[in-house]
Amino acid sequence: MRKTPVGLPEESEQRAELETRIQLTAVARGQAPADRFIRGATVVNVYSGELLSAHVALSQGYIAYVGGAESAIGPDTEVIDAAGCYLAPGWIEPHSHPWVLYNPVSLLEGILPGGTTQVFQDNLFFYLQAGAEGFERVMEVLSDLPIRYRWLVRLLSQSEWSGERAHFALEELMPLLERPEVAGTAEVTRWPLVVEGDTHILEGCQRARALRKRSDGHTAGASYEKLNAVAAGGITACHEAITVQEVLDRLRLGLWTMLRHSSLRPDLPELIRAVTEQGVHTGRLMLTADGPAPRFIAEHGSVDEALRVAVASGVPPIQAIQMATINPATYYRIDDQVGGIGPGRWADLVVLPDLEEFRPKRVLVGGRDVAIDNRLVVDLPSIDWDSLGMRPSFSPRLKGCVGKLYLPLRVEEQLPVIEFVNNVITQGGARQSWTSKGAVPQDLLLAVLADREGQWMSRSWVRGFAPHLAALASTFNTTTHLLVMGRDPEAMQRAAAWVIEQGGGIALASRERVTWKLELPIIGMMSPLSFTEVVEAQKELESHLQAAGFPYRDILYALLFLTCDFLPGWRLTARGILDVKKEELVQPAEKMMPTN
Amino acid sequence: MRKTPVGLPEESEQRAELETRIQLTAVARGQAPADRFIRGATVVNVYSGELLSAHVALSQGYIAYVGGAESAIGPDTEVIDAAGCYLAPGWIEPHSHPWVLYNPVSLLEGILPGGTTQVFQDNLFFYLQAGAEGFERVMEVLSDLPIRYRWLVRLLSQSEWSGERAHFALEELMPLLERPEVAGTAEVTRWPLVVEGDTHILEGCQRARALRKRSDGHTAGASYEKLNAVAAGGITACHEAITVQEVLDRLRLGLWTMLRHSSLRPDLPELIRAVTEQGVHTGRLMLTADGPAPRFIAEHGSVDEALRVAVASGVPPIQAIQMATINPATYYRIDDQVGGIGPGRWADLVVLPDLEEFRPKRVLVGGRDVAIDNRLVVDLPSIDWDSLGMRPSFSPRLKGCVGKLYLPLRVEEQLPVIEFVNNVITQGGARQSWTSKGAVPQDLLLAVLADREGQWMSRSWVRGFAPHLAALASTFNTTTHLLVMGRDPEAMQRAAAWVIEQGGGIALASRERVTWKLELPIIGMMSPLSFTEVVEAQKELESHLQAAGFPYRDILYALLFLTCDFLPGWRLTARGILDVKKEELVQPAEKMMPTN
Repeated sequence: MRKTPVGLPEESEQRAELETRIQLTAVARGQAPADRFIRGATVVNVYSGELLSAHVALSQGYIAYVGGAESAIGPDTEVIDAAGCYLAPGWIEPHSHPWVLYNPVSLLEGILPGGTTQVFQDNLFFYLQAGAEGFERVMEVLSDLPIRYRWLVRLLSQSEWSGERAHFALEELMPLLERPEVAGTAEVTRWPLVVEGDTHILEGCQRARALRKRSDGHTAGASYEKLNAVAAGGITACHEAITVQEVLDRLRLGLWTMLRHSSLRPDLPELIRAVTEQGVHTGRLMLTADGPAPRFIAEHGSVDEALRVAVASGVPPIQAIQMATINPATYYRIDDQVGGIGPGRWADLVVLPDLEEFRPKRVLVGGRDVAIDNRLVVDLPSIDWDSLGMRPSFSPRLKGCVGKLYLPLRVEEQLPVIEFVNNVITQGGARQSWTSKGAVPQDLLLAVLADREGQWMSRSWVRGFAPHLAALASTFNTTTHLLVMGRDPEAMQRAAAWVIEQGGGIALASRERVTWKLELPIIGMMSPLSFTEVVEAQKELESHLQAAGFPYRDILYALLFLTCDFLPGWRLTARGILDVKKEELVQPAEKMMPTN
Repeated sequence: MRKTPVGLPEESEQRAELETRIQLTAVARGQAPADRFIRGATVVNVYSGELLSAHVALSQGYIAYVGGAESAIGPDTEVIDAAGCYLAPGWIEPHSHPWVLYNPVSLLEGILPGGTTQVFQDNLFFYLQAGAEGFERVMEVLSDLPIRYRWLVRLLSQSEWSGERAHFALEELMPLLERPEVAGTAEVTRWPLVVEGDTHILEGCQRARALRKRSDGHTAGASYEKLNAVAAGGITACHEAITVQEVLDRLRLGLWTMLRHSSLRPDLPELIRAVTEQGVHTGRLMLTADGPAPRFIAEHGSVDEALRVAVASGVPPIQAIQMATINPATYYRIDDQVGGIGPGRWADLVVLPDLEEFRPKRVLVGGRDVAIDNRLVVDLPSIDWDSLGMRPSFSPRLKGCVGKLYLPLRVEEQLPVIEFVNNVITQGGARQSWTSKGAVPQDLLLAVLADREGQWMSRSWVRGFAPHLAALASTFNTTTHLLVMGRDPEAMQRAAAWVIEQGGGIALASRERVTWKLELPIIGMMSPLSFTEVVEAQKELESHLQAAGFPYRDILYALLFLTCDFLPGWRLTARGILDVKKEELVQPAEKMMPTN
């Protein structure tokens, strides 16, 4: 039983925080020494929009003082000379998916050195895998990280399935939504439900609102007219604008608007014209990288990259920094705790040589150095993900079926073709039959999405992906089921068997052997390896796929989105091959039959 | 017993709100008719900072649609032609004291016609009079008003007294703070307590923070150095800046900064230079009238007057309007409900001929006309304040003492002199004795603050107030006790007796009779009369006082603040004559002795 009122921290935490506050006032008065004292920086004041020379005194993880006095320097105070540098609040990522091969822990290796010190994380796959209690355990374990993640909880899955509404019942979600580390409800990818006034989603938004929390949207492609209903239904933000006009549509209707720049969609040079050319008010704009692929983070960065692009595009640096700090903090209603350099805020700070390159010399979270000169300087905990119930299970029934999934069911069989237009956009093509020898036709791949329980499968041809691919099996997709693609039935069986055996992963195989593999034992999506290692894995996978004819750069979102039913195009889903825009099932899923 | 989780609305309200939301999405889709449809206005879009031509559809008190379509017009939809007009969100007053002769109901007569449609009200005197339960009853009764007041709850009284901390115990305050209509904790006038890390106040701020609510400050005269400790302690805003530098000090330290313009301090032409000359970021600035006197509202206005002054001073109109609408809504974390013209927000709107004079042709609250052409068009409820326990009591003991309070206690007696520098600023003067005949010396008045329980009294001379005043008795002061001033003991006795008899009020008297009187049966501060009537009362009182030599214009704050211990100068308090700045008791309160 919870002892404290709903949504409030435990009593012992409250007591500790009070002691800290009392201490902060003493340091601010100059009557107690600071733990650390950052001397002589030019402070980026996001509150007033000014650059001001000031010292900053830190105590117990917080900022206690900002100003010209040095009375907080005691004999044991560590003085950090920051003369000639800028001191800014750490960047805040308002919209992140912590499962793009990396996991919530290894992601920190990727983003902390660039200065991202606060992240609002999507809970989707943790919740799908383990429900409310399982996700609470994950939050608990991750509360020991050197960053205080905030979470957004999904009101529904991305894809509809029969048990979905029960799995996401509000009684299950409310204890999560009430927790202090949960900032609101996560993106509703199936936004037409909001337009139609879906009771469950509207009630979820309402509960969030009553708790003074937020409800993120995901209104990809929504017209201005439909956005009206989205806003009326209670959605408070969107990150899916891909043109200036879409930025304006969202902003004008009162949705806080996240400008996205990521591996998936490097749109910022376009979007930022809303500011540089249209001159809109920037107080309700934010920058997001929206869960970029590991290699993008390693090569470009995260929110820091968006900052570079914004400033290079002509946004005044302080305004750009506001979009990456105080604006998201204000949106999520924790501007009294983060997002600016003011007394009483967490000491989440970046020391910068300039306001153009945004490459921090030093990054602090809660007053502690976490990165210096682009190098992580804190140890990250090792998490026993299996004990958290994060390894997906595959039923013996699927194992029994795996041998013959990749052969025609009947000689006359025809399958629809999904054509890749780019790495994430698809369209429908004419049906085609197998070759007369029962093989995969020239230029196509067979794609099978196979239920982990071995009950159903969805099959199609795929064109324009990697025409020479023998076999790829992957649990890295939006459904949590097993996606297998290739030309060679034996190779496909081999790749699938390896992934099932590991309980999640990505494998490439020839007829003879597994030629490349990556275990993803965390929900089939995430690797327990270090961030550097998953970056290398992504590169290897891309290089293998490109050798098989994959014409694009980023493979991960191609895999992730082939199965998603919230992006237009034809998609391979649990219900079958779906024309998302027409909401039409091109071919229903089939029953999976065990081998002999 | 509360059925719903702490801080959440009742279940029936939640259900009704959900139905409303579903309806709003239907109206937004054009599939259900709007109740009202405002056609063709130029909308002040505070989200994007633009002026945009758009229709606005209203349903069930909310905005359902903003845009170019007319599909929400049904056969019964009332179409309001607003072509050639501006449509702006109603003004939000972030800091108000609803007891300056007017009461929370009659105040609406004063402010609604000017376009103020949301007010954050201080709960001080209601709480002092009736405690947490009594104040809850007041909130309940006032929830029927044509405006949805939000409240801020005090963590302490303005003045220290022996039972104060018990009366304001956190266990008492928490059920209030958790209520949805309470937005946070109210101004802490004794801000040095925050600087010193007062546990009670810091814990109150912490509780508000955990509930994602706010903690207003009142840091009159605080140096930049001390403001650091105020912010570190958890205070989130201040409205007490009286110079540009003080605006900058507060804003830079992360305090949301309210720029005040009122009868008490018409400072905006100075303060606004922070914007017009220093060019600071305006996203965390707000405008407030801070509880002006009735006559000021009648003659000048409230937040609307601050808007006029801001724009006349050179602030671009949209930016000024943001400071009076979306900024306070964002500060108090209800920007998803008010403060802008977006779907899903309450239809609190003003129709304006221009963005200069800000004199609304029409004011809507919750979609309903409340004022047209500066005239109130809604009925205000009649409140039975007595049944709410709002009439102050005076003990028989005080009645027994009242006859001889205005004579020397001893022949050799000397009293300190409080000198008025202006109507609210005072300073100390040398002690003086009574005349040899036991009369009040030339040019002075005797001032007595008498305990309602008849236990103590504080006495001084007053210079520079109204030297020819025979007698004034008033419960309209910060202490809730009886203040009597004058030269003539018999007249003073007469005025005091009348006020005691009424259970609160202001009276002037000659030796023969009560010459002017105003009943204030609501906590001794507020009149049940209409707003127009209290404006007249204020004018009459001022004219009488000026005839007695009062050299200033505004009498009300002179009376209110003579007894307050949170403004510098010498003050007449329950503890005695206090030199506030030095925190020194110039003369302790005396025991009150009954007449024979």
